[in-house]
Parts: sequence; C-alpha cells; structure tokens
Amino acid sequence: MIQGIRNSRAKKHIFKHNNLEQLESLFAQYPKSTPKLIAFESVYSMCGSVAPIEKICDLADKYGALTFLDEVHAVGMYGPHGAGVAEHLDFDAHLKAGIASPPFKTILDRVDMITGTLGKSFGVVGGYLAASSNLVDWVRSTAPGFIFTTSLPPALMSGITTSIGLVREDIESRITQQKNVRYVKKEFGRIGIPVIPNPSHIVPLLVGNAADAKKGSDALLNQHKIYVQAINFPTVATGEERLRITPSPHHGKDVCDALIGSVDQVWKDLNLKRVPQWEEFGGHCGVGSANPVKVENLWTDEMMKLTNADLNDNVHNPVIKQLEVSSGIKI
Amino acid sequence: MIQGIRNSRAKKHIFKHNNLEQLESLFAQYPKSTPKLIAFESVYSMCGSVAPIEKICDLADKYGALTFLDEVHAVGMYGPHGAGVAEHLDFDAHLKAGIASPPFKTILDRVDMITGTLGKSFGVVGGYLAASSNLVDWVRSTAPGFIFTTSLPPALMSGITTSIGLVREDIESRITQQKNVRYVKKEFGRIGIPVIPNPSHIVPLLVGNAADAKKGSDALLNQHKIYVQAINFPTVATGEERLRITPSPHHGKDVCDALIGSVDQVWKDLNLKRVPQWEEFGGHCGVGSANPVKVENLWTDEMMKLTNADLNDNVHNPVIKQLEVSSGIKI
Ligand SMILES: Cc1ncc(COP(=O)(O)O)c(C=O)c1O
Ligand SMILES: Cc1ncc(COP(=O)(O)O)c(C=O)c1O
Repeated sequence: MIQGIRNSRAKKHIFKHNNLEQLESLFAQYPKSTPKLIAFESVYSMCGSVAPIEKICDLADKYGALTFLDEVHAVGMYGPHGAGVAEHLDFDAHLKAGIASPPFKTILDRVDMITGTLGKSFGVVGGYLAASSNLVDWVRSTAPGFIFTTSLPPALMSGITTSIGLVREDIESRITQQKNVRYVKKEFGRIGIPVIPNPSHIVPLLVGNAADAKKGSDALLNQHKIYVQAINFPTVATGEERLRITPSPHHGKDVCDALIGSVDQVWKDLNLKRVPQWEEFGGHCGVGSANPVKVENLWTDEMMKLTNADLNDNVHNPVIKQLEVSSGIKI
Repeated sequence: MIQGIRNSRAKKHIFKHNNLEQLESLFAQYPKSTPKLIAFESVYSMCGSVAPIEKICDLADKYGALTFLDEVHAVGMYGPHGAGVAEHLDFDAHLKAGIASPPFKTILDRVDMITGTLGKSFGVVGGYLAASSNLVDWVRSTAPGFIFTTSLPPALMSGITTSIGLVREDIESRITQQKNVRYVKKEFGRIGIPVIPNPSHIVPLLVGNAADAKKGSDALLNQHKIYVQAINFPTVATGEERLRITPSPHHGKDVCDALIGSVDQVWKDLNLKRVPQWEEFGGHCGVGSANPVKVENLWTDEMMKLTNADLNDNVHNPVIKQLEVSSGIKI
C-alpha cells in the first residue's frame, strides 16, 4: 500500500494511527472539491488494532474523500461470510441477507474500494479489489503493474473459487479461531506474558528490544520447535519490538498449551519483562498501563454462539446458487 | 520494466532503439565511477528485433555500467536449452556444456542481471531473476513489491519446475517453431503481405493506421475465427500500427495455411497496403525500402538440423541429475 501511494506520485499526508482528530485536520486543509483518497487497513497486522471504519467513512463524506480499505489481515476471519471487518460491522444484517445486499446502505457499501488477499486466509495466492464497476475499470486501465502481467493460471483460479466458497460458508472456523485466540490471550495474561491488547486475532507479545526479540524467536524455534517471527524496526518502532502470534482454527488447546509453556520458558530463560515489570516501567504499548483502555473483541460472545446452520438458515443458499449459475463464478 | 525504472526514481535517459552510438554518447556524459544500469530486452515483442547484447556488454564494461536484460520474449525459444538469446549467442559452447558453464566467459556470464517469465513459453506464471547471489540478495532485500507479497503456492512451483525441465530438454520444439515461423514469413512474402523484417519468431504485419489495424483484427476474429491482436499507439508509434502474430511449435502447415489465406482475404476486403504499395510510399518500418537491410535469423540453418539427441549427447544429463539432487530444484 505504501509503495502504491509512493508510485502514484500524489501529494500525501500520513495520519497518526487511528487518530481521527488529526485525520480531520489534514482533510480540513483542502477544499472539499480537491480530490482526496484515504487509504487505511481494517486489522493492522503488527498490533492487531482495528480502524474505526465507519467514522473514517463519515469524515470522507464530510470532506469529499474516496476511501480505500485494505482487509488483507481480516478477510476470511471477520464478517459472517468472512468478507472482512466492514462486513462484520453490520454483522446481523449480513448474516440475514446472505451474500445479497441487506435492505439498507451498509458500511461495506460505504467504503469505495476494498482490497483483500487470496493468500493468507484463503490459502492460495492473488488478490482482489471490490469496488463499483467504474472504479474497477479505472484501476484495470491505469494500473501499470496489472496491465502487462501474465494472469493467474486456470487451475489456480479454480482453487481460489473453491476456497472462497468454503471460507464463506464456514462460520464455525471463524469462531473456533476466536476461541483459540481468547484462550491464548487469557492464559498468557494469567502468567503475566505481555500481550499488547487488541480486539482481533493477532497476539503480539511485547519484548521491547530487537536483540531479545530475535533471541526469543530463535529460542522458540531451536529449543521448542515453534516458529514465531520476531518483529523489529522498521516494521514496528524501536522499543516496541515484539513476537507476533496468530492462532488459527487448527491450533487447538494442546498446541496452544505447548506454545504457552514454551513462551513461559523462553521468558524465564531470557529474563524478559512480564506485565508487572512493564507496570513499574509506567506501561508501554497498552501493556501494564495504570488506566488500561477497555478493549471490546470484534467477535462478541453472542456471535461466538452461531453455527454454520445459522449462517445458512436464510435466503443465503438460493442466492449463491443463482450467482453461480449466472456468472459461472462463486464470489 | 518502464515502471521499475520510474519507481526507482533514478535519473534516466532513453536511448533510441538498438542505437549504440547514441547509447555510448549518453554513457560518455558521466565519469566511469558514476553508477549506471542499462536496461534492455533481447527480443522486442512488437517488432521482433533483437538487441546487440554483446556490444551493449562491451559498452557497459567501457563506461562502468551494470547490464539488465529482459528475456521475457526469448526464454524457451532461443539457446540450445531455451535460456534465451544470451545463451543462443554462444550456441555451440552451451550445447556442448549442457547446463554447466562452458570453459570460458560466455555472454550469459557477462550480463549482470537477466529476467524472464515463467508464463508465456513456460505456460505457468511467475518470473525469475538470474544474477550473482549478491545481486539477487540485494533485489530480495530492497524490492518492495517482492518482500511483502505472498509467494506462489507449492503446486504451481512444482508445475514450473516440471515445465522448465521439459522446455530445456526439447530443442526440437524450438526448431519446429522456427520452421513454422519461416514458413509463415515466406508465404506472406510471396503474396506481398507486409511482414516487418526481423531475425526472430515474431511476425508483425504492417497496417499503418489504428482504425484499419482494429478492423483487421475484428475481421480475422469474426469472419475467420482467428484471434490476432491489433497493436496500436502507445504500444507502437502512430503510423506503425500492426497485427502481431506468433506461430508456436503447434501451429503446423494446415493452421498456417488457414491463417495466410484469411489474412490475404482481410487485406483484400479492407484494401490494405501490400509490399508494392509500401515500396511506392518509399518503404516503412523496413517494409518495401529501396535498400533493405539483410536480416540473419537467430536460428541458423545449421542449428535447425539439431535433434534432442544432439542436445542430450554430452555431460548434460549427469549435470542435471546432480543439480536436482543437491538443490531439490531443477533449474
Ligand atoms: C518485455 C516484457 N517484460 C515483462 C513482461 C511481464 O511478463 P510476466 O507478467 O509474465 O512476468 C512482459 C509481458 O508481456 C513483457 O512484454
Ligand atoms: C496490509 C497488507 N496488505 C497487502 C499485503 C499483500 O498480500 P498479498 O501478497 O497476499 O496480496 C500484505 C502482506 O503481508 C499486507 O500485510
């Protein structure tokens, strides 16, 4: 995304992470008629925080900006059908409507462009842009990295189509993932391993310096056979180095317990700071702060009780069938 | 390639097509110590012309430049093993050495970076950079479009590996393609269809204006069931619009005859200029000029007599086996 912004050569401003006041003051520098595009992500991969999508759309309306949302780290995992956080924010309406549009303008409708990957959650490769056909045409005709590039082979497209169908219809896997995430976060909390608080499936463990993050990652791999990537500068700011863990639906209790035990051991062996030490330090990255901000999980307790039957118990399936017949492609 | 140059933000100069004098005068503007990179292609896809690779390497040595060669339209089709035109230029030595290095510094060795596609000839998708491990490491670490992108799935990599192996060991398909190309060019010549002369497999038919090129392409598709893309501005200069044909090894005499008959009919129906009319016009794009430049085919008559047995009749196969065992990958 950064590269795309650079290559566009458009004038750019960077707003502080999820800081709407500052975003508004940047918008307010220009007349409403000046073309603007706000590019942001839903789930931020390194801290697990989530953008205030609806409020950003409000500001975009007020100041005449297009919205571009990267859902790469959310697709498959949020929304009743896995379309991402924008779908998740109108959860009940989308659950009810299936893959048709609910009878009002949803947040999914309000965002002008949404990109996602067909790697990661979908397990294949490639990506997509969802937008009005005019905007899609515009990107098709003007994106130089796209026009002259060999397209994905048919076998891969077929795998992608199948994967989209499976992911969309499997709300239980989304819920299982969230259960595993809740378990890991709770158990880490119990033994004081510093999880940077967030409402998503990302479990970032604060280490606080590059050397220790690397050592922690190496120790987990070499002594515990667990591969956890160390995240250092420039991916995160200096002093905010971390280990980043993403439990999947397939990381059940046994695997999670092994992870937790191993992390505990590594924290001991390397004498890394636990929550109480970060408290003494005055708190850092939301860990051990005196006035912790309450974080609401994107997946509520109520949502966690749904089953695939709930997802399929509506106009959903007929609509899918219809689309399949008319376009030859399941989306 | 153009996009890569733009995105690099490096100062750039454009040299006229295959014009070494002008290239040298551009190099000569800077001290030898100023870092330079010359980016060029081997087979140019729209006219079928071929860069003077060896002379460009000479200039690069003289003026202290790195060389970057795009062989996307040559891999699979030139060189005894299909590595491209750079391999083709030391044909006998590479034929003899198999995929090992010949006992002297070849042109393939002299080019600093060679890129190719794993689409087109290889029929899959993806691409590669062949260079010293230092240069490859540098690209790996600094190419933003590469670092954060999902890699190709294993099934695709396996298809690519198999395809590389097949293409490399099948010199007969390369020769069959060249035979089909020669046949098509000769037959077009016989009936005055204006083929822009070149030493490669590309068969560009000069039309000379965008409206007729589009009409010609449409007529071939709608009346003759042959899809031939019209090439208009900005892909080629205004006035040089053309239809571009690439016979493959699978386009045998029957298919070629159907093509030739159809093109003949379209030229009649649309009243397009044939070679004699271009002659009256004083010649254009090398068609119908008073003093035609003699074009030597990259594939010589001698090379065209080779068989797969010739390709495999040397240290070739043992070397392949060795590489497969040591790296797990056939390259
Ligand atoms: C000269 C040249 N380089 C590179 C490419 C890109 O090919 P690919 O997308 O298969 O890597 C093309 C595509 O047509 C091309 O013409
Ligand atoms: C925020 C974000 N967007 C886009 C991408 C690119 O993903 P892909 O290569 O699968 O399209 C990544 C990769 O990690 C990412 O983190």
